[in-house]
Amino acid sequence: MVDPIELNDALERVSAFLDGGDLAGAVDYLRTLHPADSAEILAELEPEEQASIVDRLQVGELAEVFEQLDEDEMAEVAQHLDVEMLADVLDEMEPDMAADLLGELEPEQAAEVLEQMEEPEDVASLMTFAPDTAGGIMTSPPPSLRRFWTVAEATSFLRKHYEEEEDFFYLYVLDRHARLIGLVNLKSIILAGPEQTVEEIMTRNVISVRASADQEEVAQLLQRYDLVSLPVVDEEERLIGIVTIDDVIDVIEEEATEDIYRLAQMSPDSEIYSPIPEAVRNRLPWLVVNLGTAFMASAVVSLFEGTIAQAAVLAAFMPIVAGQGGNAGTQTMTIMVRSLALKEIEPRDTLWALWHEARVGIINGLTVGVLVALIAWFWQGNPYLGLVIGLAMLGNLIVAAIAGVIVPMVLKSLRIDPALASSIFVTTCTDITGFMLFLGLATYFLYYLL
Amino acid sequence: MVDPIELNDALERVSAFLDGGDLAGAVDYLRTLHPADSAEILAELEPEEQASIVDRLQVGELAEVFEQLDEDEMAEVAQHLDVEMLADVLDEMEPDMAADLLGELEPEQAAEVLEQMEEPEDVASLMTFAPDTAGGIMTSPPPSLRRFWTVAEATSFLRKHYEEEEDFFYLYVLDRHARLIGLVNLKSIILAGPEQTVEEIMTRNVISVRASADQEEVAQLLQRYDLVSLPVVDEEERLIGIVTIDDVIDVIEEEATEDIYRLAQMSPDSEIYSPIPEAVRNRLPWLVVNLGTAFMASAVVSLFEGTIAQAAVLAAFMPIVAGQGGNAGTQTMTIMVRSLALKEIEPRDTLWALWHEARVGIINGLTVGVLVALIAWFWQGNPYLGLVIGLAMLGNLIVAAIAGVIVPMVLKSLRIDPALASSIFVTTCTDITGFMLFLGLATYFLYYLL
Repeated sequence: MVDPIELNDALERVSAFLDGGDLAGAVDYLRTLHPADSAEILAELEPEEQASIVDRLQVGELAEVFEQLDEDEMAEVAQHLDVEMLADVLDEMEPDMAADLLGELEPEQAAEVLEQMEEPEDVASLMTFAPDTAGGIMTSPPPSLRRFWTVAEATSFLRKHYEEEEDFFYLYVLDRHARLIGLVNLKSIILAGPEQTVEEIMTRNVISVRASADQEEVAQLLQRYDLVSLPVVDEEERLIGIVTIDDVIDVIEEEATEDIYRLAQMSPDSEIYSPIPEAVRNRLPWLVVNLGTAFMASAVVSLFEGTIAQAAVLAAFMPIVAGQGGNAGTQTMTIMVRSLALKEIEPRDTLWALWHEARVGIINGLTVGVLVALIAWFWQGNPYLGLVIGLAMLGNLIVAAIAGVIVPMVLKSLRIDPALASSIFVTTCTDITGFMLFLGLATYFLYYLL
Repeated sequence: MVDPIELNDALERVSAFLDGGDLAGAVDYLRTLHPADSAEILAELEPEEQASIVDRLQVGELAEVFEQLDEDEMAEVAQHLDVEMLADVLDEMEPDMAADLLGELEPEQAAEVLEQMEEPEDVASLMTFAPDTAGGIMTSPPPSLRRFWTVAEATSFLRKHYEEEEDFFYLYVLDRHARLIGLVNLKSIILAGPEQTVEEIMTRNVISVRASADQEEVAQLLQRYDLVSLPVVDEEERLIGIVTIDDVIDVIEEEATEDIYRLAQMSPDSEIYSPIPEAVRNRLPWLVVNLGTAFMASAVVSLFEGTIAQAAVLAAFMPIVAGQGGNAGTQTMTIMVRSLALKEIEPRDTLWALWHEARVGIINGLTVGVLVALIAWFWQGNPYLGLVIGLAMLGNLIVAAIAGVIVPMVLKSLRIDPALASSIFVTTCTDITGFMLFLGLATYFLYYLL
């Protein structure tokens, strides 16, 4: 029984060995850990500590470490290896992970390493696919079965070819043109008699994807059909790879992160550890675009400068109307964007959603409007000020609901990611209508506000 | 080869059958589809259409349908079944899904159905665990192996007990106290000789969790160690259940959705299809809390009413300072919250993050500040106005960076979900400092602004 270790404790132990100059002790300790944990610890160490540990690891151990790291960490650790060693390690790695690692190197370095590899073919062919497609996340296909084999033949084939394979769960059956015609799960092999044929125990209804399919589509298929892996085929239905569930989990997290960052108006590629110039590039353009829309709101306000000059108290209430509108609009927009991403709703549901959100907007608008009106009245001692801000609030929350539905739906219909640009349009709508309504009504009732 | 069907097309075909009064045709067509697809289509139909189709399905087919539906949909379809039928269907279902379905019924109805079931034990015991724990998402343990069995014995045991089991990937080995002592993957059974013992081919380092572990922890373990299922044990290390990867994917999506909704300041339980009163409950309280902080910003502005009365143009620039501060703060806060959720960063990295984000804030603040200053100068013809707003912008973007780091880190250290409350604190900071800086500087330079 292994309890998952506390990574921080383990990291401290390794650091203690290293600080005491006991490099061998550190390496021996790392060897007692699960490869996922020792890799994680290695990635957390300082570059020179990494270098000295990497120096002491065998090729097979290094391959295992790289298979557990994410792409940035791979690149970092790879720096400590020379081209020949790197080529040896890559030969030992799962082809999809090897391709990921090569993708992190400088193009010339990657070419050099590929040249030094003993079996570069699988990796090189995986590297030809776009990274966010089925081809980009798949690994090379495992040795496959033929349908006329008996279970006994299949078993001895597996003994021969699968001793070295990672954990696997399905076997694939190909015809003589290498086209995928069936799937055998390991359970059926164990339960079948030795003289039964592969054809008798295989499932013919194999769900597969093309290599060019978007990784999001792959994730949805695996989820919809509760699969742990999905075969990838070319235009002739030939099996060219396998996508496994662990890659798909990464895709699901990645897509969620991208939506979160887009909703917060920054580049979906943002990372906390980005170097400063990259972090600035990931955020500054969005601030500048927002500046443009902020000046539109500002222009609206400046139309009412005369009113404000007479009743400066209005300026104090401006942030409340705009802020509440922005918050309500963000709520509606966010639930729309996420429900679109999870396919819980589609553009054809726009009318239904409008009616649903408008009612929520009216109820929230009435509640918040009355509340704000009362506070404004008692604070400033003027019921008309309460009336003006209350009405503006109600109106703005209804606009927020409508914009919060329509903007993501329109973007989705135009095949633009609704997470990408919804925030900016929705808050522009609520800012502008909020100020218009509030300052417009205030101008109309100005006599009573003075 | 099965291409995943277009659900909308299939739905239209079923509707066409039903509109033509051909119920048998609709049912026959649904039977040709993958259970995941026919269940999805059933869930999309009108209640009376659902009732008439459900009426024609066999117990086993219904069990399969329910296993594919999410919890809301289960409850909806279950309405069409009487207690006895429902009990029969539940007997056929995987215990974890059956427990989920029962959890959706009214307590009395659930008790009645449990009483009618032939084998209620597994399901009833699963229902005792909190829904968001390992116990709440696990299913009953499969029949397990003993370590002294030979592979031949294990195989005949599997033939006897596993014919009916769903797809499975690992077998578990228990000692005579039902304690988990090892794991055998199916590959090793196939590759082993018939006379080898289970002990020889089993892995002893089995990673497991307690039933009370949070579902998020379960998801992290499966991801960290690239597993497709995880055994769940009680305090005596006895195997009491299995969590499979498909449940974990649901957890990962659910947790991402919760964070997205919390960042948008609404209840994490929000759903696009919530009835209106629930939707209002999920959002209104957050608007009211925000109203409180908006009034704080408003109080700051009202301190400067005298300044605004003399230079009403300032009111037009207020939304720009606050808006940009809010956007920049949201960027930093969002990347912090997401990186904390993905364990890419921890509270002990606070100083590093402050220094990193402060530099980004200074660069963005200088750029946006100069830009705003130039626009304000040329628009209003007054360089001092440009100076005031530019300085306020720079200051506010630095504050935004600091608040964006500190607020989530402090919440995390206090064991409060940073996604829950970060937005409100960060925007309150940026609103208040934004207005303070801008209107304070304007008051200082008032002579030059008139």
